[in-house]
Amino acid sequence: MKFADLRPIARSIREFRPWRVSPLYYGGFLVIPAVFVGEPTVQFSESLSETDFVLNTFAFLVWGALVMWMCAGFTMLVSGSVRTKNASMICLKNIGLYSIAGLAFFFIGYNLMYVDVVDFIGSFTLMYGPSSDELALLDGDDAALGAVVDQGHATMSDWFFQMVFVATTASIVSGALAERVRLVPFFIFTFALTAAIYPIVGAWTWGGGWLAEMGFQDFAGSTIVHSTGGWAALAGVMIAGPRLGKFRANGEARPTPPSNVLIVTLGVLILWLGWFGFNGGSQLKLGSAADVVAMSNILVNTNLAAAAGVVVSLAVSRFIFGRIDLIVGLNGAIAGLVSITAGPDITEHYWAIIIGAVGGILCTLGMKLLEKVKLDDVVGAIPAHLIAGIWGTLAVCIVAGGDFVTQLVGVLAVGVFVFAISWVIWKALALSPLGIRVTRDVEELGQDAGELGIEAYPEFVLMPDSYDGD
Amino acid sequence: MKFADLRPIARSIREFRPWRVSPLYYGGFLVIPAVFVGEPTVQFSESLSETDFVLNTFAFLVWGALVMWMCAGFTMLVSGSVRTKNASMICLKNIGLYSIAGLAFFFIGYNLMYVDVVDFIGSFTLMYGPSSDELALLDGDDAALGAVVDQGHATMSDWFFQMVFVATTASIVSGALAERVRLVPFFIFTFALTAAIYPIVGAWTWGGGWLAEMGFQDFAGSTIVHSTGGWAALAGVMIAGPRLGKFRANGEARPTPPSNVLIVTLGVLILWLGWFGFNGGSQLKLGSAADVVAMSNILVNTNLAAAAGVVVSLAVSRFIFGRIDLIVGLNGAIAGLVSITAGPDITEHYWAIIIGAVGGILCTLGMKLLEKVKLDDVVGAIPAHLIAGIWGTLAVCIVAGGDFVTQLVGVLAVGVFVFAISWVIWKALALSPLGIRVTRDVEELGQDAGELGIEAYPEFVLMPDSYDGD
Amino acid sequence: MKFADLRPIARSIREFRPWRVSPLYYGGFLVIPAVFVGEPTVQFSESLSETDFVLNTFAFLVWGALVMWMCAGFTMLVSGSVRTKNASMICLKNIGLYSIAGLAFFFIGYNLMYVDVVDFIGSFTLMYGPSSDELALLDGDDAALGAVVDQGHATMSDWFFQMVFVATTASIVSGALAERVRLVPFFIFTFALTAAIYPIVGAWTWGGGWLAEMGFQDFAGSTIVHSTGGWAALAGVMIAGPRLGKFRANGEARPTPPSNVLIVTLGVLILWLGWFGFNGGSQLKLGSAADVVAMSNILVNTNLAAAAGVVVSLAVSRFIFGRIDLIVGLNGAIAGLVSITAGPDITEHYWAIIIGAVGGILCTLGMKLLEKVKLDDVVGAIPAHLIAGIWGTLAVCIVAGGDFVTQLVGVLAVGVFVFAISWVIWKALALSPLGIRVTRDVEELGQDAGELGIEAYPEFVLMPDSYDGD
Repeated sequence: MKFADLRPIARSIREFRPWRVSPLYYGGFLVIPAVFVGEPTVQFSESLSETDFVLNTFAFLVWGALVMWMCAGFTMLVSGSVRTKNASMICLKNIGLYSIAGLAFFFIGYNLMYVDVVDFIGSFTLMYGPSSDELALLDGDDAALGAVVDQGHATMSDWFFQMVFVATTASIVSGALAERVRLVPFFIFTFALTAAIYPIVGAWTWGGGWLAEMGFQDFAGSTIVHSTGGWAALAGVMIAGPRLGKFRANGEARPTPPSNVLIVTLGVLILWLGWFGFNGGSQLKLGSAADVVAMSNILVNTNLAAAAGVVVSLAVSRFIFGRIDLIVGLNGAIAGLVSITAGPDITEHYWAIIIGAVGGILCTLGMKLLEKVKLDDVVGAIPAHLIAGIWGTLAVCIVAGGDFVTQLVGVLAVGVFVFAISWVIWKALALSPLGIRVTRDVEELGQDAGELGIEAYPEFVLMPDSYDGD
Repeated sequence: MKFADLRPIARSIREFRPWRVSPLYYGGFLVIPAVFVGEPTVQFSESLSETDFVLNTFAFLVWGALVMWMCAGFTMLVSGSVRTKNASMICLKNIGLYSIAGLAFFFIGYNLMYVDVVDFIGSFTLMYGPSSDELALLDGDDAALGAVVDQGHATMSDWFFQMVFVATTASIVSGALAERVRLVPFFIFTFALTAAIYPIVGAWTWGGGWLAEMGFQDFAGSTIVHSTGGWAALAGVMIAGPRLGKFRANGEARPTPPSNVLIVTLGVLILWLGWFGFNGGSQLKLGSAADVVAMSNILVNTNLAAAAGVVVSLAVSRFIFGRIDLIVGLNGAIAGLVSITAGPDITEHYWAIIIGAVGGILCTLGMKLLEKVKLDDVVGAIPAHLIAGIWGTLAVCIVAGGDFVTQLVGVLAVGVFVFAISWVIWKALALSPLGIRVTRDVEELGQDAGELGIEAYPEFVLMPDSYDGD
Repeated sequence: MKFADLRPIARSIREFRPWRVSPLYYGGFLVIPAVFVGEPTVQFSESLSETDFVLNTFAFLVWGALVMWMCAGFTMLVSGSVRTKNASMICLKNIGLYSIAGLAFFFIGYNLMYVDVVDFIGSFTLMYGPSSDELALLDGDDAALGAVVDQGHATMSDWFFQMVFVATTASIVSGALAERVRLVPFFIFTFALTAAIYPIVGAWTWGGGWLAEMGFQDFAGSTIVHSTGGWAALAGVMIAGPRLGKFRANGEARPTPPSNVLIVTLGVLILWLGWFGFNGGSQLKLGSAADVVAMSNILVNTNLAAAAGVVVSLAVSRFIFGRIDLIVGLNGAIAGLVSITAGPDITEHYWAIIIGAVGGILCTLGMKLLEKVKLDDVVGAIPAHLIAGIWGTLAVCIVAGGDFVTQLVGVLAVGVFVFAISWVIWKALALSPLGIRVTRDVEELGQDAGELGIEAYPEFVLMPDSYDGD
């Protein structure tokens, strides 16, 4: 079964267009030429929908490339947010996680998520590749054209688009756990997340499993991508514990401002751009007018939600933190983007503004809340991806016809599953000889000098580090 | 009336292709099947042009995403150009202005610019959204397909493309006024610019108003976008006054080199990339061979003009400044890009080189001139966008058949209007309790520490600031 | 002759699809309407393939824009890799080389490479432009439509795509020669490389010359682009000699870590993204299902090879350098990308992983080897582009049916030609009054302060430079 046919039922119904699938539609044209010249008349029909095939596939590739670019966004966002002494390690973790995610998804993950899914999980076969019809077509067998075109899009274009999504999920974890988690256990967790945890959540939903059958709606992944990353991060944060000195003896959180604000801002703008691919490409088709109308609305809503997230977060920060706070505003952009991701195809655009604005507020409050409960999430990944992701998934009930109970079941099921299994893996890693936490010496010195041996800016004179004392 | 039908007359004539609009063209095909099978024959015609619709819309989205990326370009260009102590504030101003621009254009600006324009201004209605035919189509009403396809593109894809243009206009202002203008008044001016000033200029021209009726030509906005931004910046620069210590007692300008040259260079390269979307997308259509031939010429000319701007500016800087100057070269790229923007669809490519080269020279001379008249434009936004924008608009007369008087009227009308209204707004803000200028203490300390509370690179040790003394 | 028709023979055969070119294919449809309504029947045929034309052209523009973005990738990669004191100079060199490459290719290079190629070289005419049919079409002559559509794509869209390739070749040289080669001779060499050396190699291969006739396969340029850049860099490195103090008296290489690791990482991620355009666009067509199936496989293989390059390089670095090394991993990504570039359209994806992994290993070993033979390649451009490029070109024999002798002839012919002519030019420049090497004083002080007068980060306090002593 092809992925595109398996999105949640609500969506399938919405997209059902009988004139596209009915053989009667083009039939009028097909008959005539055959009568007169004896050409294989099916060719004409194929010829027309071959354009759809081309367009659908090209959209996956172009939008997918933009989503890959989000990997750079996360890398810049996090490496600029941490203290200088840990910035190179983030670069290594993030380029490594993107690579591991791509390989793990190729060998294992995609099949678990999309191939022969029955309720909870797909196939345990290894590797994925072009369809046999595609191979025949590439080998010059013209007779395969019809079967290829009937796929709707090239097999691997869909794989490519899904692969950059799993990488996004893994990227979310990196930021929350920065500055104290060791490299190798981080990579091991990344492998587990991208080979199994995310694909299983995906099998339940986009793969056509039990949540899809219930009617759970999550257009581009507020829950499936962003909350999944957020829950995995939360489990890690709880087990790894806060950075040395993050919380003072009196319980107050010590500020740890970003070491390179320009790079953080660049990272957020990269994410904003990439999100057009993330949400726009999740339309999954480009071949019809209805598809591109929807895609246009999606890009507009994505942008409006992010803009509202920024403006409202800045305003709120004035009250909560006492000043207009750039970092809160940047997180507000991300929270707005995450919030709209579950239902960006709504047609009343002011709702996108409201959803993004509420997402920005919840994220800002969430940052405060995490500090209160002494969870140390270095970049605010949990408020921006987990909390805003939950909000966005529930907001679908208001604006896009989602059923509240179903949405809640989806949020909770994904939350319990991802959090529990992540907790077990992080705990097992922590108890293993590897451990997950760097030594106190390395943490004080920084992972760059202490674990990696490459400093981020070796020639700049740094301020004496005042975080480790009290 | 739809935007795409309202571009300047000269362009409409050039694009007039009777075989595209004539019902006779496809007529031959439409009749036959109906005779034999009784299918609704209009479907075939729609089916063909549905592909045009898809392509036109997708081009708006893809090129529009690249134009959004220019926001990151301006953010990097300016935040790297200012002194370290003000770099975070630029990040905040630029992500804020992009957000405000998007919301202001949604609620007010687009309607003023494009809806029911009569001569000077469009509609005062609030908000914008999909057409009723599009809503019907998305709701599953197949009968709406024909009317949707007749639009030529999805309503909100055009909105998205126009929205990123207004954000570009606003971005230009940020750089010129950096390092001394307060945040809140800057945001208020941004709102006025993007909700009203730019949309009114747009109504005169792309919206089909009086300048369009005169035959004013400005393909992608040398005047409409870039000079508009430049005039607004000029008014602000005159009212805000120069940075403390920028001009010595003897009238000489003190050099204020960029604090992060790599980030400035990155910003320019981002803008260069984004400009392919800016100019290429301004073809407004992708559906025909003629459109993509034009679009190809546009991208080539855009690149040649920028390259010529760089090379000539570097050569000229050798004579004017005594050395090959990177910053002059980077500004030369932007000046070349701005210069070609009014007529990038010319078919003799060497003219693009000449136009870009002259733009580069004028920008370089303009940078010198501004210093002479003691106007402090931190990044050279006025030479690069205003002066090169005027040149580009007039150059259309040489290469693309523009009428000199008409072009001059357009340049002057836009200049007088934008400069005057911007002056009034900046002056009113300056005289209000808000003020527009930071205090002397904040300016010496830097806006990052003094106004924002977030330093750009808090851990790097900075050179003692030597600008404030003489 | 058009470029697209002249790719190596093996490729032409693979792409030969009779149903696309046969007039009989659509013939059935063409006859009928004519019989009944007398419409010019050729229009229908054109109308269908006009969509192919549009799609082919649009793909060149979109993927070409991504390849232009690689210029930013190289600029960031190299300017972050050099020591702070030379970083501005890299920014200047790289924006300059992109500009020079574009102009040189417009005036001279493209014609040498693609116009009337006979065996070794094309035409010596100056400048390039749209076809006369395109000009007629843009002037409103509808009768030209058929001839334009028969081109397969807009003339200048192909030019644009080829131009960004030549800029990539030139970018490779910049990194290897950083920190000691003077600006003006570097620009002179860039002009020679982009106006003549690369175009001649291109004429032999993609231009349809003698190597293409032999059946040499290099899909997107492992040899033609990357090895060409690598050989030119190698000649320059040998003549310019190592940086002062790079090799200690005892022959040991002194480490020269990147001065800005975040910017280096950003550069690599930009290159990774751009490579989707580089390899994907090299399919040269988007109009058929077979094209987009191939393009999808290409993007997937490109990503898998890069990911494998990263993972394997990191693992290998653990053994060779004693620790997991970020810089080795980043170079591994590039080596993986270069390796797959000669045959990214393979359908068994695990081969892409193997090819990329081997490329990563060879690059890592190559970095060690260069140090042993005392060649100072600042960013590892020679291992990543030359060595991995040779490997990738030969690997085509294993996975994509290339003939080993033919591939080897191609590798050697290009190597001998490019290395020899580059050596002569670098030597002539070195012996000329210009020289190619900065003075000892300038090298110690840095090119930014000593030659350019613009420091990269003028406000940050730098560590005292400890490289020049022993």
